[in-house]
Amino acid sequence: MSARSQESPGSRTGRLDESVLRPFPNSRKIYVEGSRADLRVPMREVTLTDTPSATGPEHNAPFYLYDTSGPYTDPGHQVDLRRGLPAMRAGWIEERGDCEQLEGPSSRYGKRRGSDPATVALRFTHSRAPRRAQSGRNVTQMHYARRGIITSEMEYIAIRENQLQERYQTASGLARCHPGQSFGAQIPERITPEFVRSEVARGRAIIPANINHPESEPMIIGRNFLVKINANMGNSAVTSSIEEEVEKMVWATRWGADTIMDLSTGQHIHETREWVLRNSPVPVGTVPIYQALEKVDGKAEELSWEIFRDTLIEQAEQGVDYFTIHAGVRLAFVPLTAGRVTGIVSRGGSIMAKWCLAHHRESFLYEHFEEICAIMSAYDVAFSLGDGLRPGSIADANDAAQMAELRTLGELTQVAWAHDCQVMIEGPGHVPMQLIHENMTEQLRLCDEAPFYTLGPLTTDIAPGYDHITSAIGAAMIGWYGTAMLCYVTPKEHLGLPDKHDVREGIVAYKIAAHAADLAKGHPAAQLRDNALSKARFEFRWLDQFNLGLDPERAQAFHDATLPKEAHKLAHFCSMCGPRFCSMKISQEVREYAEQNKIADPQEAVEQGLRDKAREFRDSDAEVYQRR
Amino acid sequence: MSARSQESPGSRTGRLDESVLRPFPNSRKIYVEGSRADLRVPMREVTLTDTPSATGPEHNAPFYLYDTSGPYTDPGHQVDLRRGLPAMRAGWIEERGDCEQLEGPSSRYGKRRGSDPATVALRFTHSRAPRRAQSGRNVTQMHYARRGIITSEMEYIAIRENQLQERYQTASGLARCHPGQSFGAQIPERITPEFVRSEVARGRAIIPANINHPESEPMIIGRNFLVKINANMGNSAVTSSIEEEVEKMVWATRWGADTIMDLSTGQHIHETREWVLRNSPVPVGTVPIYQALEKVDGKAEELSWEIFRDTLIEQAEQGVDYFTIHAGVRLAFVPLTAGRVTGIVSRGGSIMAKWCLAHHRESFLYEHFEEICAIMSAYDVAFSLGDGLRPGSIADANDAAQMAELRTLGELTQVAWAHDCQVMIEGPGHVPMQLIHENMTEQLRLCDEAPFYTLGPLTTDIAPGYDHITSAIGAAMIGWYGTAMLCYVTPKEHLGLPDKHDVREGIVAYKIAAHAADLAKGHPAAQLRDNALSKARFEFRWLDQFNLGLDPERAQAFHDATLPKEAHKLAHFCSMCGPRFCSMKISQEVREYAEQNKIADPQEAVEQGLRDKAREFRDSDAEVYQRR
Repeated sequence: MSARSQESPGSRTGRLDESVLRPFPNSRKIYVEGSRADLRVPMREVTLTDTPSATGPEHNAPFYLYDTSGPYTDPGHQVDLRRGLPAMRAGWIEERGDCEQLEGPSSRYGKRRGSDPATVALRFTHSRAPRRAQSGRNVTQMHYARRGIITSEMEYIAIRENQLQERYQTASGLARCHPGQSFGAQIPERITPEFVRSEVARGRAIIPANINHPESEPMIIGRNFLVKINANMGNSAVTSSIEEEVEKMVWATRWGADTIMDLSTGQHIHETREWVLRNSPVPVGTVPIYQALEKVDGKAEELSWEIFRDTLIEQAEQGVDYFTIHAGVRLAFVPLTAGRVTGIVSRGGSIMAKWCLAHHRESFLYEHFEEICAIMSAYDVAFSLGDGLRPGSIADANDAAQMAELRTLGELTQVAWAHDCQVMIEGPGHVPMQLIHENMTEQLRLCDEAPFYTLGPLTTDIAPGYDHITSAIGAAMIGWYGTAMLCYVTPKEHLGLPDKHDVREGIVAYKIAAHAADLAKGHPAAQLRDNALSKARFEFRWLDQFNLGLDPERAQAFHDATLPKEAHKLAHFCSMCGPRFCSMKISQEVREYAEQNKIADPQEAVEQGLRDKAREFRDSDAEVYQRR
Repeated sequence: MSARSQESPGSRTGRLDESVLRPFPNSRKIYVEGSRADLRVPMREVTLTDTPSATGPEHNAPFYLYDTSGPYTDPGHQVDLRRGLPAMRAGWIEERGDCEQLEGPSSRYGKRRGSDPATVALRFTHSRAPRRAQSGRNVTQMHYARRGIITSEMEYIAIRENQLQERYQTASGLARCHPGQSFGAQIPERITPEFVRSEVARGRAIIPANINHPESEPMIIGRNFLVKINANMGNSAVTSSIEEEVEKMVWATRWGADTIMDLSTGQHIHETREWVLRNSPVPVGTVPIYQALEKVDGKAEELSWEIFRDTLIEQAEQGVDYFTIHAGVRLAFVPLTAGRVTGIVSRGGSIMAKWCLAHHRESFLYEHFEEICAIMSAYDVAFSLGDGLRPGSIADANDAAQMAELRTLGELTQVAWAHDCQVMIEGPGHVPMQLIHENMTEQLRLCDEAPFYTLGPLTTDIAPGYDHITSAIGAAMIGWYGTAMLCYVTPKEHLGLPDKHDVREGIVAYKIAAHAADLAKGHPAAQLRDNALSKARFEFRWLDQFNLGLDPERAQAFHDATLPKEAHKLAHFCSMCGPRFCSMKISQEVREYAEQNKIADPQEAVEQGLRDKAREFRDSDAEVYQRR
């Protein structure tokens, strides 16, 4: 492994594997321009085939999908990992005139690492010097929002969230939509830049957008927007190289990851992070305590505020968009976990618990929280307040330790907001279905509607190897109830590190959960895609059915497995029933017949029939029951 | 294909593939004996390893799992598909003295098929002559139940449902259990034979147990019992042979299918069904209209009551345990589907709709329903009242057509019950999360708590290739709300016929959904398994973690992918964090420390801390907010 990670990914792979870049079938990248020429919001346009009909083919308008894949799926973009992505937001950040460009990294570690000859071969060579807020200034999106400023990021997000849905409002049948049940969310029919601003100002949504990550395409996390998903990656001491991590990141955004977290714990995490950030079109989150722990050789008790602080600055200057900070793991809560079936399962939580106990002192994260806020606001790093005491098993769900920490996270949210810092709150973990709603409700109440960001939750512990499914169930439900972002779980959870296959499985499971949640909340744009796909299915437009789905490649491959011929993609039957009989085909005939032979007031006819029959049944019942 | 299916599976494969029969690791089949020597309830005993501790290893008692896999996983059983399974229930059926053995099949088709030289090579040769109720007698489990008779089947089920849970009540921590939210279900702490009887008498549960399928191991479907799952199989005109179907059936029961449905539509369905039944340890359901349609060469309008009736008798005498009968698709309901996005998607539903419209007549299934009841009660075939008008897309969920049919199914339930026929009700299909509860509640109300048996439901249409996941979400939820049996969906749904891999994926996804539902309802035995597995996980008992899971083979394979060595199965770390640092390990240290350094009244300490902090925050808040 060390042989592999000693080699720079850039030197070998200015290019990525073809499977990662392959265009989606019948799709092309389009850009919707906003109020200025450099505000171009990417979407994926899916071209549909015509609907055959007796009166000639009917045209189906193209369908537009939210697109997280970045420039990689734009054939006009030349991929070169050594140069990184274009700094798309650089002009916006510059124009605001509230930050300064530094000479170089200001963290001790960043300086040292940048001049360490041992890492020359690993280093990303086109790094920019970092930016930081001018003294006394605050560069967070929340700060702007509270001052009534609509940033370019906010306008971008408004266009992106609407997904051009206005184009479908008149299209036949597609706009049909069930009323949602929103549990207090209030999603407007149309997202405006002003609505984005107001939600960010209120703290009900965040825009993770470090000024040092100008490559990222703005996105929003809040329960009045589309539910988002995060994909974790990261090398560990046991396996995987920098190059694999960069490829996994691109792969993850291809399948729909809205943000990624780099949870590397092995060697060269500084360098890996730089490569990932410079090439990531989505916000990147980290858990700085992991790296801080590496700096003290894994000895939790040797951690200090100074080491942690330097790590925050190091990572903020690289461009990390949000930090998981486990400031809610307080000394007094630790004994509350002693009776658990699975104790403390969060790495960050157990690191901090160990530190608190070793020193018999309150957590330095908790005590220095205001200083952390000052750093966050100088770069616009959002808080992801970590749930270090989350349950690691069904048995431990919603217990006293978890709830004590959640109350603290609510308090810290108010502190962060006082600094105009953006905040989301991390949540579990493992929760049986009947306790999910309570968990969500408590989070909204205790944290004043700051966005919730949950890992699953897994709804049972009994399926190692399938935890993307045990947790997609909980994720869909908690997303419905109000969670703003769902952290994916892969099939390898609890067992090993995910490979590319696992990442795809995890992401698609979570795109399903997020979309099911959008539908259930009644998001005005959500059902359009279901309707478009179902219409294609009903009309035997096989390719459209595949291409409107979350994974066109797999859908087509599965169809090919039974009916491989090209002609079958136009066939008015499928492998389930074969060519001789098909329920969908019959049902189309039924529709034509029914329309020709309209039965007057069918509901009336039905009810009359039922009344007659009911009378008859009651008589026979009476007789039968007498036998007993 | 025809070349393959012309060959008898028995002649080639008295044996099954090794992968289908391989014993689960550290597991053995045990039998719990009931009130008589021939009442032996199978369970899977999982041997656990010791927990290492400072004071020496602590013994972990073996764990007992509900076992659907039949004699195939009993090394004492000699598998010979040509002979079929032992007729375990034959004595019980005989002893009741209310049925007679016929000379041979009494259906016209069964007679013809049995003497057709063209099918000699395909035929199962050890078939028994069928049994039927003596004239004027009724042999249904409901009939016995209503007369106060506790059958051997009922006693068997009581032992089976309890899963020996009483053995764990004192085991350390394992019996811990969250209160459930049952939505009206009332699961007793301990299932008694009398409780089984009373639920069957009430119609709230069914025991599918055709007197001509004495090979089947009794099981129950009702919302006051463990949630069950069904796996569909069946060859079609396009693909798959008899032998594949038998192997798929054994494979499905291995992974946990509680019942299977044989939905064959191709050639030789009579012969396929015979092979499946003679070798199936679980109840088998069918949709007789599929075969009736084959008999009229796929022309729905040529179906007649006489052909259908003969098909019912043919299949009842082979031993089918439940029939899907789409008697709720009435003429007047058909026009209600005309405005749908996906019309009628149930095959049975569209066949009957087409017939009704072609003749402009009421459905013959509806009109002859009492005659159908007479046949069902002569063999104890349970009704699975089909939802021929179920929605085929999110857009069509809970619409007028679906609800009109559901009302009719409720009426028909009363008719069937008047004949002491067992009934369950089929449900959708495609339903967004916010409409699932309404669907369940309406079913309970309209069908007087007859068990609900749903296909999924899929909670979104946008993921062809992953519909085992889109639907496992809906299945878990509707199971929680009260559905008694969940019909699985495989990844190939909408795209192709499932192979063995897909069957395993579908079943495990549905075992997850069923178990998550059991947990959420508060089933007294459900959480034991989660607790046992989580305890093993926390104690780094890797093999126990794998073996207590739904798929030990996959869990181990995934672990091997990152840490292949045998020693790693004993390691106190995993691939996620590597050997140097492990949150689980730290958390064990934390537990020891916390116990040595008990902090007096942690909750009090916490609250005091919060109050101080809150005061401090409010002051700073006030200042900050004034800036706006």
